[in-house]
Amino acid sequence: MDIGTIGGLVLGLGLIFWGIIMGGVGVGAYIDPPSIVIVIGGTLAASFVAIPMSQMLSIGKVIGKATSNGADDAGEIIQKIIEIANIARREGLLALEEAVANIEDDFLKKGVMLIVDGTDPELVKAILETEISYIGDRHSSGKKMFDTMGSLAPAFGMIGTLIGLVAMLQNLSDPNAIGPSMAVAMLTTFYGSLLANLIFIPIANKLSSRSTEELLVKEIMVEGLLSIQAGENPRIIEEKLKAFLSPAIRKSLVSEEAGTGAE
Amino acid sequence: MDIGTIGGLVLGLGLIFWGIIMGGVGVGAYIDPPSIVIVIGGTLAASFVAIPMSQMLSIGKVIGKATSNGADDAGEIIQKIIEIANIARREGLLALEEAVANIEDDFLKKGVMLIVDGTDPELVKAILETEISYIGDRHSSGKKMFDTMGSLAPAFGMIGTLIGLVAMLQNLSDPNAIGPSMAVAMLTTFYGSLLANLIFIPIANKLSSRSTEELLVKEIMVEGLLSIQAGENPRIIEEKLKAFLSPAIRKSLVSEEAGTGAE
Amino acid sequence: MDIGTIGGLVLGLGLIFWGIIMGGVGVGAYIDPPSIVIVIGGTLAASFVAIPMSQMLSIGKVIGKATSNGADDAGEIIQKIIEIANIARREGLLALEEAVANIEDDFLKKGVMLIVDGTDPELVKAILETEISYIGDRHSSGKKMFDTMGSLAPAFGMIGTLIGLVAMLQNLSDPNAIGPSMAVAMLTTFYGSLLANLIFIPIANKLSSRSTEELLVKEIMVEGLLSIQAGENPRIIEEKLKAFLSPAIRKSLVSEEAGTGAE
Amino acid sequence: MDIGTIGGLVLGLGLIFWGIIMGGVGVGAYIDPPSIVIVIGGTLAASFVAIPMSQMLSIGKVIGKATSNGADDAGEIIQKIIEIANIARREGLLALEEAVANIEDDFLKKGVMLIVDGTDPELVKAILETEISYIGDRHSSGKKMFDTMGSLAPAFGMIGTLIGLVAMLQNLSDPNAIGPSMAVAMLTTFYGSLLANLIFIPIANKLSSRSTEELLVKEIMVEGLLSIQAGENPRIIEEKLKAFLSPAIRKSLVSEEAGTGAE
Amino acid sequence: MDIGTIGGLVLGLGLIFWGIIMGGVGVGAYIDPPSIVIVIGGTLAASFVAIPMSQMLSIGKVIGKATSNGADDAGEIIQKIIEIANIARREGLLALEEAVANIEDDFLKKGVMLIVDGTDPELVKAILETEISYIGDRHSSGKKMFDTMGSLAPAFGMIGTLIGLVAMLQNLSDPNAIGPSMAVAMLTTFYGSLLANLIFIPIANKLSSRSTEELLVKEIMVEGLLSIQAGENPRIIEEKLKAFLSPAIRKSLVSEEAGTGAE
Repeated sequence: MDIGTIGGLVLGLGLIFWGIIMGGVGVGAYIDPPSIVIVIGGTLAASFVAIPMSQMLSIGKVIGKATSNGADDAGEIIQKIIEIANIARREGLLALEEAVANIEDDFLKKGVMLIVDGTDPELVKAILETEISYIGDRHSSGKKMFDTMGSLAPAFGMIGTLIGLVAMLQNLSDPNAIGPSMAVAMLTTFYGSLLANLIFIPIANKLSSRSTEELLVKEIMVEGLLSIQAGENPRIIEEKLKAFLSPAIRKSLVSEEAGTGAE
Repeated sequence: MDIGTIGGLVLGLGLIFWGIIMGGVGVGAYIDPPSIVIVIGGTLAASFVAIPMSQMLSIGKVIGKATSNGADDAGEIIQKIIEIANIARREGLLALEEAVANIEDDFLKKGVMLIVDGTDPELVKAILETEISYIGDRHSSGKKMFDTMGSLAPAFGMIGTLIGLVAMLQNLSDPNAIGPSMAVAMLTTFYGSLLANLIFIPIANKLSSRSTEELLVKEIMVEGLLSIQAGENPRIIEEKLKAFLSPAIRKSLVSEEAGTGAE
Repeated sequence: MDIGTIGGLVLGLGLIFWGIIMGGVGVGAYIDPPSIVIVIGGTLAASFVAIPMSQMLSIGKVIGKATSNGADDAGEIIQKIIEIANIARREGLLALEEAVANIEDDFLKKGVMLIVDGTDPELVKAILETEISYIGDRHSSGKKMFDTMGSLAPAFGMIGTLIGLVAMLQNLSDPNAIGPSMAVAMLTTFYGSLLANLIFIPIANKLSSRSTEELLVKEIMVEGLLSIQAGENPRIIEEKLKAFLSPAIRKSLVSEEAGTGAE
Repeated sequence: MDIGTIGGLVLGLGLIFWGIIMGGVGVGAYIDPPSIVIVIGGTLAASFVAIPMSQMLSIGKVIGKATSNGADDAGEIIQKIIEIANIARREGLLALEEAVANIEDDFLKKGVMLIVDGTDPELVKAILETEISYIGDRHSSGKKMFDTMGSLAPAFGMIGTLIGLVAMLQNLSDPNAIGPSMAVAMLTTFYGSLLANLIFIPIANKLSSRSTEELLVKEIMVEGLLSIQAGENPRIIEEKLKAFLSPAIRKSLVSEEAGTGAE
Repeated sequence: MDIGTIGGLVLGLGLIFWGIIMGGVGVGAYIDPPSIVIVIGGTLAASFVAIPMSQMLSIGKVIGKATSNGADDAGEIIQKIIEIANIARREGLLALEEAVANIEDDFLKKGVMLIVDGTDPELVKAILETEISYIGDRHSSGKKMFDTMGSLAPAFGMIGTLIGLVAMLQNLSDPNAIGPSMAVAMLTTFYGSLLANLIFIPIANKLSSRSTEELLVKEIMVEGLLSIQAGENPRIIEEKLKAFLSPAIRKSLVSEEAGTGAE
């Protein structure tokens, strides 16, 4: 579970709640069911027009990614790859068939199996890169879905406010009703802004960061797999892959290769 | 018929209608024919200045695409291509001439005919890719047309409101008329926002997704056709093309090649 | 004359005029010469700061392009190129010298002359592509000029409104003057929005579409010229060039090559 | 001196001044020294946070470029290059050493000296293109500086207005003071808009056009220098370079090469 | 310490403070702790949703970079590289092992060690460029973090104002309370604008400039290291690297190579 996403949402809603209480007119003044229905319903309705159904149905999975712990640790993946490289060097590429069982990541597993099958290196590269590019496209449609909702929510907030203002302006006879009517009209704008700026837009940003991390790990895998297939020295592979890491992570990485090299 | 687009529009308009009724001043207060004419007419007029006539006249076709069921299923197309690859492998490229009759997609049909004609592979690739790039351009002008309308509608909404406010301000003598006059002035902004955020912008987004899907299918076709012409093994072709699919779709894809391989 | 641009402008202004009359306070209330001078003059002044003089002076030519009938028909150009290809094939490249007289388009004429002169194909390609890229740059500065004006006009509209509001607020003693003063203050915002959304921004969009069309035709010409110089079969040239067209246009294109092939 | 930039600024300020006088409350109502200090000071302060000091100190030079007469005339530069090409052809590359004295442009001079020194063509190209790319970067940071100021000025205008409105709202006891207080509060928004839309944003646009012109001239120089070094025919060099010019400029260009060819 | 960032912040806050005092209602009217908590808290909460935790925790380091003195001086680095090039030329690549001790920059040190180790030039280039691209990614996520905060702060400012306005509108019975209530409601918008336009957005811009400078220095290093490994003449290396500098800096650069050449 990603503490940032959940904690941020809870903290944000808590602060808004606290701010409302500080306002002194009670929480009830900020809750208007029809307004909630118009903003959430309108945003959803326009989203169904904007976004293909298949993608709308995957929204749970996309939210899951935004609230999960992010991609595998790049350092661990590099150690795993160097381990595989050492096996390949000592026992040959065919020996990797057994090693596949210990690989959890589907993408890495697929790559190793392609190598074991003796697939042409060009084809291995083409297949894995097509897959990476497809994964990138899938990620960016997830992000785009939340970006779209993040721009629709304030728009339907404003549409709701316009409906309320027209109603109020048509009915100015009772001066005492003007204030509360206008307050209610403003609630849809409030809901729309809150949905967009606490939920939709931040989640779109988090998805974008997650995608960058995940694609980096996948690129490290491809780089490593191609080096293993080319029979490169595990030490050089390690050097190449570590260039993808930040200096801080790099230092914490215990050289697996150095260890096995001592055998 | 695409349920999302139609259903979203119906749901959105229904919610707005319900919200208006909840406002308590009656639906009539939200319908002002001159305001409707100014917003829709102004948006159309500026669209005629902005968009070439030939494209404006194709708007029906573009809306049709946005409300249709989307591109062919990529899985089916891959099966079709592997079927063609098997025929080509067993009976030679010329045998594809008969197979053409069973191909529904114009683009795939054209590609197979180019192969049957013995066209140079470089030229086959050039012709098909020029066509894909042309299709992409056509799609993006369709999307741009709706994007343009989506930014013009709120602008003409605001222009209508300014016309109404000036009329109201010039005529403040009757205090009872101020409220209703201002309510009417706001209606154009309401119409402009609704048109933009429920119809134009969401449809532009849907068109963009449809285009991505359709171009992906076309790219799979080109990849497959070139592999068939190069005489590649149907099994390898299948492996290559399946990298374009999401894991979920991939699993549901029955391997046509495996079946024919058992012959 | 392009009916869309002119018709759209007339329709748009007519609708605004009609909307003003429907407002019931008379057209005079919407015409304030000083406000018109501030918005148009301010936009022009800032445009002179923003845009090089040489380009400002070409504004008439740019407007002419936006209101003209657009680029040559791609279908006709392809027929012309195939005609030239047939002459080149039957009578040799030098025979094109006479054909040049029948070519109206300057760009195509220049290309044919380069071929007749026996210029190296690489150089022909380099010269024509430099020219296309230059034409593209010139088009996009025309578009950018209108985009700039389209963002300056509403800004000077708002600046005019601020000048009017400050004047009104400094002079609240006569309550009867407040309404009309504020109405006048709003007129500059009205003018700025109208200029931007009916004229500047739509014309910028139209210029962008015109440029795409024109550059496509030029690219077809380069593709065709290089194929002619390479001595390719007119039938294959036709196949290649027709990939640039939409299916609808393609069907309506009578094959010139087929006709001459029957000779 | 560039008439457009200076003339546009003078015209714009004159129009605003005239508009203020037409407002009838006197120029004094529009001048509030504290408001001026807040908008200009706040914009400058935030610019110091946003922009490196070295660049802030070069602002005078950047303004100088925006108000200067623009890049050298491309036509003249082409004639100069053809002149050099003719010398190189008749008397050899080493003869260019004397010609260097007549070259005013530092970039062209450097290029000729690299050729005279017998530098490897690949290296000449690499050095000159690195320099062009560096010049482009320097230009775009100049433009970005004005873009940044153009977005900060309205923001500090709004911040100033908020400060004024809060002061006014805390002090509603004297109804006669409300109008003038609000008028003063609006002045910062007025200043911010004017600074942004008459000065900062238009100058950023002008700098961008100047950069495009200057880089085009530099690219013509590199193209010409490499052709001279390759010993190409001056006539062909002229043909190549003239493709960079607009048809209008091209016609006015007297062929230097034709003249010397008659010798 | 970077004077611009710190000085700009102090100057900006001082000006706002002075402007508030000029407003005449006292500083107290502009300080409302609950409003401060809502804007800063809400921005932070949404940032935790938007930005991965690991990056949020590095915010101190990112601020440090924005307030530091910027990248190493490119001139000094070039002198250092030419020094290394001279050692390599006189004493061979292996002699660089001792020189490594005098190199402070980690990136340059790593590059020299790769050369000393006799790493293949292609691999040296690949490792260093992967690292540069990683550094660029890290910089742009730092910038993006501040951009995100810069758009969230005004949004939560507006959300806070809506909460305050609703409270005020629900409670119009005491006319004397309206002004102060509305003043307080506006404070969150004021805080949000100030945070965004004096701190978040300007710091994002400064980070972007710093990144450009730093990456330029790194690119100079890679260019220099590859030239050293290729055994190029130090004089030519100097010529190549100086093309990265502005003319002003170039002149101030004492030619290290000329000095050692005199030995």
